[in-house]
Amino acid sequence: MKNIYDVAIVGAGPAGITAAIYIKRANLNCCIIEKEMPGGELNKTSTVENYPGFVKITGPDLAEHFTEQLDSLKIKQIFSEVVSIKNNKKSKILTLKNGNKIEAKKIILAVGRTPKKLEKDGSNTLEGKGISFCSLCDGNLYKNEDVSIVGAGNSALEESLYLSDICKTVTILCRSNKVKGDKILINKIKEKENIKIIKNATVEKFNEENGVLKSVTLKVKEKEKELPTKACFIFIGYEPDTNFLKNLEILDEKGYIIVDQQRKTPIEGIYAAGDVVKKDAFQLVTATADGALAAVTCIKEIKEV
Amino acid sequence: MKNIYDVAIVGAGPAGITAAIYIKRANLNCCIIEKEMPGGELNKTSTVENYPGFVKITGPDLAEHFTEQLDSLKIKQIFSEVVSIKNNKKSKILTLKNGNKIEAKKIILAVGRTPKKLEKDGSNTLEGKGISFCSLCDGNLYKNEDVSIVGAGNSALEESLYLSDICKTVTILCRSNKVKGDKILINKIKEKENIKIIKNATVEKFNEENGVLKSVTLKVKEKEKELPTKACFIFIGYEPDTNFLKNLEILDEKGYIIVDQQRKTPIEGIYAAGDVVKKDAFQLVTATADGALAAVTCIKEIKEV
Repeated sequence: MKNIYDVAIVGAGPAGITAAIYIKRANLNCCIIEKEMPGGELNKTSTVENYPGFVKITGPDLAEHFTEQLDSLKIKQIFSEVVSIKNNKKSKILTLKNGNKIEAKKIILAVGRTPKKLEKDGSNTLEGKGISFCSLCDGNLYKNEDVSIVGAGNSALEESLYLSDICKTVTILCRSNKVKGDKILINKIKEKENIKIIKNATVEKFNEENGVLKSVTLKVKEKEKELPTKACFIFIGYEPDTNFLKNLEILDEKGYIIVDQQRKTPIEGIYAAGDVVKKDAFQLVTATADGALAAVTCIKEIKEV
Repeated sequence: MKNIYDVAIVGAGPAGITAAIYIKRANLNCCIIEKEMPGGELNKTSTVENYPGFVKITGPDLAEHFTEQLDSLKIKQIFSEVVSIKNNKKSKILTLKNGNKIEAKKIILAVGRTPKKLEKDGSNTLEGKGISFCSLCDGNLYKNEDVSIVGAGNSALEESLYLSDICKTVTILCRSNKVKGDKILINKIKEKENIKIIKNATVEKFNEENGVLKSVTLKVKEKEKELPTKACFIFIGYEPDTNFLKNLEILDEKGYIIVDQQRKTPIEGIYAAGDVVKKDAFQLVTATADGALAAVTCIKEIKEV
């Protein structure tokens, strides 16, 4: 641990990479730590059409553009997983899975969250090929097509309304015999002729044709049924990737990191950005903005205090 | 006025363009109104190096990429200035400078703000060629160079600290005989060996060599003096472009539009995004995020209410 970084950034998704760009351009000494591929969720996104600057680009290609920026600024990239963080008085110690320790004055946490998956036959291979976790991102790919939604909480209902104006039909697959969401949403859905709800429905498997989703096999009250669908949107919740932070008392009851408007956590010198922070729109552009904001706050505190 | 738009977006800078992308992808009928060039402030920015996805790109080139997205989504672009907005019960009427009227159910205001200029000889031609209004954007272009700052309020002082870790020297040009900013900032500046303050200094003209800034001519207590400087950062305030909104009671005392976290203004169905809204970092990435957020809120209100 000869080297004490000014700032260690945990997570090289869009938020972490943007934070790193800002930190490095302020001439601070920083590193960015990533357990998988730089680019984060972008690597699991088929097509991005809502990031200004690129009319249409694949997620992995955009991830590569983002990563180029880390390289061109010569930002130190460390490929390992952070397993714990210790908050000492003058600095923080990050312990990596490979046993190494990193010391930094400040930390920006940009570890993201993972959509809960439906582990069924076909779910792994069809992700990004019909199975999606984001209607704002992918809905437009299925204009005038028949699509389906798994889940029946508020977010699933909101997304069904969003999709109903783009797609031909939207079928909501609801596990129980009752839709759980808010009354106002349920009423609105009843008014939409092209939204249908199938209750007591569980997905048994995802079926493909020519490498893309063709249909889902459902079990409805013990009976098997095949539902043709061009896309199946899964909205059964998210898991913030924050288990390693449980000792720090900066998490809310759902595991998201608590921050103020400037992206400061309750612990001095620790900031958080991106999808690991609760907000109104979990989007690529809000992630990059978050990263910049956390970095700007961090830079200000380093320079002024 | 046969056509009633779902959403009219005022201003085709980064915030407005992002809002338009989101609105159109939600299959809503929208238009975007711009009085100058689409791309907004980008058109006046020499080089952008802090927008993820582009290692280094000129502002106008990035503006072109942004505009391509409007074209590819076939978003209706109207080139005129909005001179007034009338808030009727069921819709809003926008009157344009060319006399036309536009009717829309919702409005997203993304009209931006303009940095106050120092109108001196050379100031127009050297903008983006040494004269800058953003140290986070351009500071990195002047690594190890001598730079200067006009202004001595808090933002000028904060920027001087930022630049002092990148540039060789930073000279603050202060008009009065006293620096106005916070004590904590002034103390911090005193500790920095490479920040110098010249009091009672007014800039008389900007001098160029080979098309870029070489020096500024100062008047200090009636004496003329030439200060060599590679860049001169002007921080003497901003003017939100909101004069035409004065009748709506949505402006704060400085002319910024008042919004809540979801970017709703106090008037139902009017949202605001980008630099026209007060925030902690006025950056390209925060503008795009703002545009998306205003659009997401607007879409939700259209679909659910």
